[in-house]
Amino acid sequence: MSTVSLLSYDEMLPEAQAVIDEIKAARGVDDVNNFWKALAHQPATLRRIWDGLKEVMAPGALDPLVKEMLYIGVSVANNCDYCIHSHTASARSKGMTDDQYAELLAVVAMAAQTNALANGLKVPVDEAFQASDR
Amino acid sequence: MSTVSLLSYDEMLPEAQAVIDEIKAARGVDDVNNFWKALAHQPATLRRIWDGLKEVMAPGALDPLVKEMLYIGVSVANNCDYCIHSHTASARSKGMTDDQYAELLAVVAMAAQTNALANGLKVPVDEAFQASDR
Amino acid sequence: MSTVSLLSYDEMLPEAQAVIDEIKAARGVDDVNNFWKALAHQPATLRRIWDGLKEVMAPGALDPLVKEMLYIGVSVANNCDYCIHSHTASARSKGMTDDQYAELLAVVAMAAQTNALANGLKVPVDEAFQASDR
Amino acid sequence: MSTVSLLSYDEMLPEAQAVIDEIKAARGVDDVNNFWKALAHQPATLRRIWDGLKEVMAPGALDPLVKEMLYIGVSVANNCDYCIHSHTASARSKGMTDDQYAELLAVVAMAAQTNALANGLKVPVDEAFQASDR
Amino acid sequence: MSTVSLLSYDEMLPEAQAVIDEIKAARGVDDVNNFWKALAHQPATLRRIWDGLKEVMAPGALDPLVKEMLYIGVSVANNCDYCIHSHTASARSKGMTDDQYAELLAVVAMAAQTNALANGLKVPVDEAFQASDR
Amino acid sequence: MSTVSLLSYDEMLPEAQAVIDEIKAARGVDDVNNFWKALAHQPATLRRIWDGLKEVMAPGALDPLVKEMLYIGVSVANNCDYCIHSHTASARSKGMTDDQYAELLAVVAMAAQTNALANGLKVPVDEAFQASDR
Repeated sequence: MSTVSLLSYDEMLPEAQAVIDEIKAARGVDDVNNFWKALAHQPATLRRIWDGLKEVMAPGALDPLVKEMLYIGVSVANNCDYCIHSHTASARSKGMTDDQYAELLAVVAMAAQTNALANGLKVPVDEAFQASDR
Repeated sequence: MSTVSLLSYDEMLPEAQAVIDEIKAARGVDDVNNFWKALAHQPATLRRIWDGLKEVMAPGALDPLVKEMLYIGVSVANNCDYCIHSHTASARSKGMTDDQYAELLAVVAMAAQTNALANGLKVPVDEAFQASDR
Repeated sequence: MSTVSLLSYDEMLPEAQAVIDEIKAARGVDDVNNFWKALAHQPATLRRIWDGLKEVMAPGALDPLVKEMLYIGVSVANNCDYCIHSHTASARSKGMTDDQYAELLAVVAMAAQTNALANGLKVPVDEAFQASDR
Repeated sequence: MSTVSLLSYDEMLPEAQAVIDEIKAARGVDDVNNFWKALAHQPATLRRIWDGLKEVMAPGALDPLVKEMLYIGVSVANNCDYCIHSHTASARSKGMTDDQYAELLAVVAMAAQTNALANGLKVPVDEAFQASDR
Repeated sequence: MSTVSLLSYDEMLPEAQAVIDEIKAARGVDDVNNFWKALAHQPATLRRIWDGLKEVMAPGALDPLVKEMLYIGVSVANNCDYCIHSHTASARSKGMTDDQYAELLAVVAMAAQTNALANGLKVPVDEAFQASDR
Repeated sequence: MSTVSLLSYDEMLPEAQAVIDEIKAARGVDDVNNFWKALAHQPATLRRIWDGLKEVMAPGALDPLVKEMLYIGVSVANNCDYCIHSHTASARSKGMTDDQYAELLAVVAMAAQTNALANGLKVPVDEAFQASDR
């Protein structure tokens, strides 16, 4: 179904195995999910993506659950099946409640609706919003 | 620039004026932003969108700033100029810091990147994620 | 496969059951389609979406079949599997012929092609079009 | 602003001029809009797009105004500024009323909203819809 | 699964059969892939798309493999399952190596990421880039 | 116009200045383009994006011009104004001819068209394509 095979650990190059080892350790899991097994064909990309994700999703000015919910919102807008499933599961494991999920989807869908209206009407941006830009 | 004129209050039908009055009161402002002036050509849509937004963006299981940030994320993914500007301004007025904004954009962009990878590789969804579905 | 379970009528809250009852009555069906069973986890969203759809899709200045075809066109552009299937079925039940469907898809695809060309070339909007804005 | 210059008639190759002549004749205009002046750098594409558009947008099982409205709907979903302006102007010249336009935008925006919900919830397609496929 | 049946050769109209014959001859295959069998319901579109594809994908200033890779990139960005699979297979049959594919996906994903950043930040286009436009 | 100010070199933090210095040196320019001046508010993202771009766009199994053209294709599909302008300029500086550009746009637009057809018809993926997956 995927355009490349899902590599088992033994089939990966050492550079890829090293990243997989880090993911397992960071997440405390015995096996990684399919995304990484597909990406392991490309050790340089695997390394770059894992390092980037680790940095971007770490606790910071936004808490990790908010970041997961943002990830879901963008994945819905971009309609990435895999990412919607994986990040919805991840958000739940980080404590997202059913009510939070319901509100998240309601906001995402409402945004899609007003995005369409503003794009269709080609509404010019108010000066006040640009003034708030700095 | 817009595909319809931006209506002044006096040009609006009474049903539209009633919605505009509610927006001004709810936000404590003297004038509404351009989106509403364009939408005022369509009183039924204006009413439905305002009522919907009020409901969806109200404090609930998610706090209003998180909702604004989700709105920005979706608007970026859908590339709605107006919405990006208006909701970024709105998030700032609700207290979004520069660091929060930087992290928000980093998450949105990282999501776009892995969305493309998962879509391009057509990675099959792990059973574990589906099991987490209920 | 869905990120939430499809609720049976008995599992729904009374507020959700009330909406489902309305949908069944309006459509003269014994059971609603999966979209509503998934959305029933979120009674407020379920209510808002059903009321909105009823209003927006009602006969008006555009006839219901034209509205269904517009719905298909947007759903194709947004690549919503579920919506493409459900609204294509709905348009057929409202009388869409094979020839109409063929022309609809031809227009949608041609629009996608010229959208890409105009976006890629960044063609500036003619004054004449803006003059036609009012 | 565009990534190529807008060619004047005199700057075009004869193959491009021939297409421009056809467009002027078909539309009864003295000059063509910017899209064609940008596309004229690529006579083969210009020819293919004009011939295709003529065929696809001709009266058939769907009337030309419905086709224009479908074109607007897709252009909004794909967020093509130029196409939104040009096809909104074109639909108006073909008789689209303000009420039709309002309903068109309401449908497009509602579709964007339920597209997001169905994509986010990953609702499985009902067998009944697939049965309606033939 | 598709919204129309996949037509067998015997079920097609003569105008459609003529196109299918051309595709088989051009590709040296005994049978065409599903896309053409679905499109065969619409002989005019089938003819237009085949003629267009033949013209656009022919060797020219860009070699056919580069064109296939561009096709994959756009199909990933538009998230077309069918097109991703068919054009990835096609690129491989034209000689795309695993390393080329890995780099292609890395570029597509990186572009999606910086697209999101530039769209989110609403970066104004540099005059130097516009000067390079002609 | 942007949602953040474009930082001058003197306004940047040392971590950001270090990246800007690298960009100037790598490109042999006196000043960087606006994207980097906006991104400089976020030194960690600036560092990650620059390092990633350098790696991804370097000569490898694909030559840098092909990579730039892929970047344009994706940016058109995602409709990123800034990226379309900057990467079109960049591809030209790397030797993209007018004919190559014309063919590139023709492929991107044709792909958008068949993406819409395959998505609208929901064509099932041929086993042969999946067999070509490994």
